[in-house]
Amino acid sequence: MHVVVVGAGIVGAAVAEELARRGATVTVLDMRSPGRGASHASAGILAPHTEAHEGTPLLDLGTRSLALYDSFVARLGERTRRAIDYARSGTLEVALDAAGASALGASRAWLAAIGVPAEWMTGADLRSFEPALAPDVEAALFKPHHGWVGVQSLIAALTESARLAGATFESPIAAVEVVPHTTHADVRAVDRRYTADTVVVAAGSWSGQIRIAGIDPVPIRPVRGQLLHLEWPATPGAAIGLPSRVVWGADCYVVPWPDGSVLVGATVEEAGFDERVTLDGVRTLADAAGRLLPRLRDATFLAARVGLRPAAPDGLPVIGPFGEAPRVVVATGHYRNGVLLAPVTAVMVADLVLDGRRDPALDVTTPDRFGVGSTRKNREEPS
Amino acid sequence: MHVVVVGAGIVGAAVAEELARRGATVTVLDMRSPGRGASHASAGILAPHTEAHEGTPLLDLGTRSLALYDSFVARLGERTRRAIDYARSGTLEVALDAAGASALGASRAWLAAIGVPAEWMTGADLRSFEPALAPDVEAALFKPHHGWVGVQSLIAALTESARLAGATFESPIAAVEVVPHTTHADVRAVDRRYTADTVVVAAGSWSGQIRIAGIDPVPIRPVRGQLLHLEWPATPGAAIGLPSRVVWGADCYVVPWPDGSVLVGATVEEAGFDERVTLDGVRTLADAAGRLLPRLRDATFLAARVGLRPAAPDGLPVIGPFGEAPRVVVATGHYRNGVLLAPVTAVMVADLVLDGRRDPALDVTTPDRFGVGSTRKNREEPS
Repeated sequence: MHVVVVGAGIVGAAVAEELARRGATVTVLDMRSPGRGASHASAGILAPHTEAHEGTPLLDLGTRSLALYDSFVARLGERTRRAIDYARSGTLEVALDAAGASALGASRAWLAAIGVPAEWMTGADLRSFEPALAPDVEAALFKPHHGWVGVQSLIAALTESARLAGATFESPIAAVEVVPHTTHADVRAVDRRYTADTVVVAAGSWSGQIRIAGIDPVPIRPVRGQLLHLEWPATPGAAIGLPSRVVWGADCYVVPWPDGSVLVGATVEEAGFDERVTLDGVRTLADAAGRLLPRLRDATFLAARVGLRPAAPDGLPVIGPFGEAPRVVVATGHYRNGVLLAPVTAVMVADLVLDGRRDPALDVTTPDRFGVGSTRKNREEPS
Repeated sequence: MHVVVVGAGIVGAAVAEELARRGATVTVLDMRSPGRGASHASAGILAPHTEAHEGTPLLDLGTRSLALYDSFVARLGERTRRAIDYARSGTLEVALDAAGASALGASRAWLAAIGVPAEWMTGADLRSFEPALAPDVEAALFKPHHGWVGVQSLIAALTESARLAGATFESPIAAVEVVPHTTHADVRAVDRRYTADTVVVAAGSWSGQIRIAGIDPVPIRPVRGQLLHLEWPATPGAAIGLPSRVVWGADCYVVPWPDGSVLVGATVEEAGFDERVTLDGVRTLADAAGRLLPRLRDATFLAARVGLRPAAPDGLPVIGPFGEAPRVVVATGHYRNGVLLAPVTAVMVADLVLDGRRDPALDVTTPDRFGVGSTRKNREEPS
């Protein structure tokens, strides 16, 4: 079986690796180099119980995917002998005021109701648990099962593992068009043409721009995220050290790496395909980070990054085949959770493509839910 | 005559070029590559009537140096055929509140008293003069004779012009020590030794760290400055365009280049030799720039830079020979005005070294004013 995967971000790379490892012949096409879209500006936080709400499909997918992460990372590390930055050291969600503490209390209640471990902390306990926190933090909720992964090292391991299983990566490829048939699908690049048993469109924010003949575009829009890359200030003597875990505030989150690198994310901006780091993005994150962890004000500023997250109108991932074009499978719309959801997405897609096994979650994530793809609509408009 | 110049920042490069062009054999030693100290983070503003106060020696030096700038830049451009970014488009000093406007009014008064052109602007006149200004700007003082220069292009032209006149640049050089004699001076690097008729120490913030045998170090301290490099946001349609001149506020100044580059400077920090760009430095400048020119909030963030300005205890430049070691001339302590003062410094040093002509300003700038260098002091302390 030959599968063409369009997109080599975290989702495309994970899907390609899973397919290749399970025996498919895989070609990955990307318009840039691997991991340069939303993945480029991801802080790699694995926090389904902060990102998703009670009883939602996103929470189900997130918890399923988080459960896969230990073995996902271990397998990639073993296959490639690459070090993958990864820690399940928890996330500390903090409230800087009474209103925030009240919302945090509500989270605590529903997490307790579904049996998810989360520890409520205030006062001296919190100070000694995380001395770097701002003194005006009211309360915090520690979720010990959460964690973070180094996205660049993860993508490097995924692409290498996929290559070890025979996958090929081609980039940059311009102007991809997919032409579905009953038994297969063609992919046309500018000067090349691929015929595949299945095509997986995992092009992130650009997924709606991949022309699929006879099918309306998936309604994915880009949501800009800016991220700061800092270095925790050297602390001679007994000064306050690096936080021991992800700290998550109302206006930013902070991922401290054991080597002193610190990622601060992320803005959430409706800016179309404008992939610029802006002065105000940097200012907003710098301000929020300093309020959360005052020592960060003296952190070394290394760089600012930007990525466009792919968002569907309902905020849920878009995973599955088109009813009208079953040889074309999409895997996009992961919004802020592409890194978290990559393992489960890869398994769902590979189960479907290789074994015809349809994960029940596909009923929720199907691209057909937008009413696109089910009928051909002619969109020719007067120019 | 052989002159060794220690330091290839804006001052060292200008001194070397002047000496070489006027016939000296010049060797320039730098611990880094040219222009990597304070010059690296300079916005290149030429504004003696904003930086200096009425009746001060700094104002005299600044106005003398500004008067040299047109021919300085023209000569370098002709000699090297290099484009030097330079404009005498004025500076617009703005006040964001009533207290600032009052201080600005005082500046206007003393400038008028000494016959310096400066135009007071408020209200609709100011809006039409500079539409990008924040609406809450109270008043502004336009000084049409001020300007700015692109420091990197200027240093590149200076070093090339010096080389055309036979100067040699050696870098990186470690651990320089100067040994003065009556008729000459030796310079010892780690593995090299130079004998010169005169040694010029123009090592910026590091000038106090150049050991000069028998002479106490010049009391220069580094004052950190951080600078942002932005790009004015593209403005489709009739949106607000790039400012036409330097805009100078209470908390930052903004230098718009015709190509859309924008420099925002600068922090003033006592941070020793800590040459880091910090989160708070970036945040402070971003905040101030957005308050001054709101359109800048959407500017593209390209980079942040840092430099250490050399400051003497009295804030004045330190230029001239040591009484005890007349073959060693210093040229440092230019603090925030190295770029402005480079031409006059070069002329003062070359007049002295080549022609024995002692500029009266040397009475003010002499290193002997600190009581160092006039007697050998043994500083051996118990360890």
